[in-house]
Amino acid sequence: MSAYTRLEQRFKRLNALKEAAGVLQWDMSTMMPAGGAAARGEQLAALEVTCHELLSAPETAELLEAAEGEAEALEFWARANLREMRRRWRHETALDPALVEALSKAGNACEMVWREARAQADFAMVLPSLKELLGLVRRAAVAKAEVLGGTPYDALLDQYEPGGAAARIDGIFDGLAAFLPGFLSQVLERQAAAPAPLALEGPFPVETQRAFARRLMERVGFDFARGRLDESLHPFCGGVPEDLRITTRYDEADFTKALMGVLHETGHAMYERGLPAKWRLQPVGEARGMAVHESQSLLIEMQVCRGAGFVGYLAPLAREAFGGQGPAWEAENLLRHYNRVEPGFIRVDADEVTYPAHVILRYRLEKAMIAGEMEPDDLPEAWNAGMAELLGITPPDDALGCLQDIHWYDGAWGYFPTYTLGAMAAAQLFAAAETAVPEIPEAISRGDFGPLMAWLGEHVHGLGSLYGTDDLIERATGRPLDPKIFEAHLKARYLGDS
Amino acid sequence: MSAYTRLEQRFKRLNALKEAAGVLQWDMSTMMPAGGAAARGEQLAALEVTCHELLSAPETAELLEAAEGEAEALEFWARANLREMRRRWRHETALDPALVEALSKAGNACEMVWREARAQADFAMVLPSLKELLGLVRRAAVAKAEVLGGTPYDALLDQYEPGGAAARIDGIFDGLAAFLPGFLSQVLERQAAAPAPLALEGPFPVETQRAFARRLMERVGFDFARGRLDESLHPFCGGVPEDLRITTRYDEADFTKALMGVLHETGHAMYERGLPAKWRLQPVGEARGMAVHESQSLLIEMQVCRGAGFVGYLAPLAREAFGGQGPAWEAENLLRHYNRVEPGFIRVDADEVTYPAHVILRYRLEKAMIAGEMEPDDLPEAWNAGMAELLGITPPDDALGCLQDIHWYDGAWGYFPTYTLGAMAAAQLFAAAETAVPEIPEAISRGDFGPLMAWLGEHVHGLGSLYGTDDLIERATGRPLDPKIFEAHLKARYLGDS
Repeated sequence: MSAYTRLEQRFKRLNALKEAAGVLQWDMSTMMPAGGAAARGEQLAALEVTCHELLSAPETAELLEAAEGEAEALEFWARANLREMRRRWRHETALDPALVEALSKAGNACEMVWREARAQADFAMVLPSLKELLGLVRRAAVAKAEVLGGTPYDALLDQYEPGGAAARIDGIFDGLAAFLPGFLSQVLERQAAAPAPLALEGPFPVETQRAFARRLMERVGFDFARGRLDESLHPFCGGVPEDLRITTRYDEADFTKALMGVLHETGHAMYERGLPAKWRLQPVGEARGMAVHESQSLLIEMQVCRGAGFVGYLAPLAREAFGGQGPAWEAENLLRHYNRVEPGFIRVDADEVTYPAHVILRYRLEKAMIAGEMEPDDLPEAWNAGMAELLGITPPDDALGCLQDIHWYDGAWGYFPTYTLGAMAAAQLFAAAETAVPEIPEAISRGDFGPLMAWLGEHVHGLGSLYGTDDLIERATGRPLDPKIFEAHLKARYLGDS
Repeated sequence: MSAYTRLEQRFKRLNALKEAAGVLQWDMSTMMPAGGAAARGEQLAALEVTCHELLSAPETAELLEAAEGEAEALEFWARANLREMRRRWRHETALDPALVEALSKAGNACEMVWREARAQADFAMVLPSLKELLGLVRRAAVAKAEVLGGTPYDALLDQYEPGGAAARIDGIFDGLAAFLPGFLSQVLERQAAAPAPLALEGPFPVETQRAFARRLMERVGFDFARGRLDESLHPFCGGVPEDLRITTRYDEADFTKALMGVLHETGHAMYERGLPAKWRLQPVGEARGMAVHESQSLLIEMQVCRGAGFVGYLAPLAREAFGGQGPAWEAENLLRHYNRVEPGFIRVDADEVTYPAHVILRYRLEKAMIAGEMEPDDLPEAWNAGMAELLGITPPDDALGCLQDIHWYDGAWGYFPTYTLGAMAAAQLFAAAETAVPEIPEAISRGDFGPLMAWLGEHVHGLGSLYGTDDLIERATGRPLDPKIFEAHLKARYLGDS
């Protein structure tokens, strides 16, 4: 048996164990009673140690070297698989086990303090823990950069967005940061001149919302023989390609949020569902990275479902499902709800126009902190200055400011930019799909996602990790990631330019 | 670090991985959509291989030998833990890996054919698969017997009931088989002379049944911060001591079955919940075996909840929960339902009096087949002869006869006797508890399980696998397992003798 074939077997087991951990995590968020937390922690830790040992075993390194020596003989996709195996191996073995353990403990400890600090809007409370954690994250970034090349920040980014580089993102985000404030003023001015959205009067029973959400998921293409919709505090898409587990959270006073949240997660699920079955449980068969993943959820949510075509389809169905009456239930009014722009303090509540400003702020700050150009002591001040510059508002306290997101406080540095890279990729991919398949808009206005999904299946979902993100986008759209396409989408939707 | 301490760490990881598999199995039975089966199979297989490798690794054998060499220095419970580790190791390593794989494949294949054969009542259809499987099971039994001592059948039994021996069970079951037919005639005669139970008129909505079942579970002592109640095709109790997952199946025309089924599973759950926390994830901290486990479910269901004291508490609550009216809802009538005796073909539907006959029949047949004294070709005839002898009825076809249970067809030979050993242990333990704590009956008639659970916690639950089954029963009740106590319970309940 060749070294490569033995690696395939090893990664198959490794990925099956990772998927087992994924089911346990889904259960933890949706089903597990509070008392089960400690036992679940032991189960997940045992799986993590087992996976780490499997990947960092001397035999894995030997097999990788042997397989790379005979890579010429492999098919194209198997070579890509070997590349992805090596990538996983590099990340897993770059850090001293003592540093991995210290990071895990410091992350858990800091997150605990952060929960309390956020509740009390007391940044000073969490500052010592954050400084300790950042010290470890910097060490990890330096160690990974030595193995991967690039800067320490790039090494962190690479965990979420393989091949991502800050030098490139800087250019993209600087352009966007220059565009956004002026654009936002225009949007707000235009919006102020138009009628305010009429209120949709509830209550909207959870059971009705759930049934309606399921119906729309099926329109997008979700197959309930291969997945579920459940509830959790923080919505997510978990599970495996043949058994996708979407969650949401319902508000009986407002059906619009859970509905769009479910459609967002359905975008993630459709990506996972469409991953290449023949490369199942192999690294090359996995989703490409967080930017592409986010592009798929945002393509469904932002590009399609908040667009006039889909909302025109949605409005009469919503009116019927919830027994609504009057002009508030007209498509035009529902569209005003779904396209409302309003600068606010909280990223997860932000609209499509102001969201990138939240991300750019975090990206700049975390990059400076990883590089040692800024210390956490200066975070609240720098945060508030950035909010004033990008959105023209200043948080009244740190709970609405630099304490709002969990990421930094549990060790996830380098993640933030993928949200906005995903938003831009979504705009570019959707534009390319519409150009390639002109019937897509009309089909969507009938609730038919077939033509769009067929194009996405061919150009994104079915490719897994065969190509890098840049390559994937260029092959699908004919050009590298281009922020102008995202800007054009924003102008068309919010200023009526086209 | 001592060899023993390293073994503790190794078994901690091993058991955490086994618990992870348990959560995946619960999910598979309750939540998983049909499409997820293949991926789940990969996840479970990866966990099983990982656990097997961990236990059968040369290092484990070395550590066991080293630890046994210095066992004198260990505390009592740690020596018991080491004994249980060795037991697990012996079972795991007794078989050639090729035989393990062949058994697994033959079991899966035979089970598939059996489903169809049972549906068509066609024993000939499954006979070749059953013969092949039995051949492998015999080989496994011989191989395990060489390692464990005892007969090949004892080696199979030991998988479910550690230390169990057919020579001892023969004596117990022969006595019971001699007692039962005459006793059954007396019961049926007495029952015929009494009024027939009045029908309880439904429908009984699932939601009402569920809420009522949850309320009674809480009375027994189940803590919903540490467990759940869900639905599955085949009811079971899964999960871990801090997170117990009971399932049931509802029939809207009859609430009595699901209710008693839930109380049965609650008995299993209370055992798991009461296992010693300080030995968590160690073999000595686990439940003693299937006979003791079944004794705990049957103690709650049969000894307590089908008794007059508890039914007297239950009847007015049931009437209120389901809005019942009239004499059918009196305790006396509900008791007639719950103590109805009627010889039938199907084991899982059998009452407390006829159930042992089903088990004794299977025990005798499987023992003969493992010993090579009988071949599967003769099974239908031998089955029907046994049913005529023990219960005086003859199945009209094999679906109601030797095709009804999954056990033999998926390779679980040596399991059946634990059901009736458990029933006898339940009677003996409950009698001892009532003698030791005289207020138990009165407390139960008020729905207060506290005094009973305190006694069980001390004498059964909290001991884990510290003692063997025989030892545990003798320590708890002052004498070895004594079938006369079970017979006395039956006479008291069904003939009014006391």
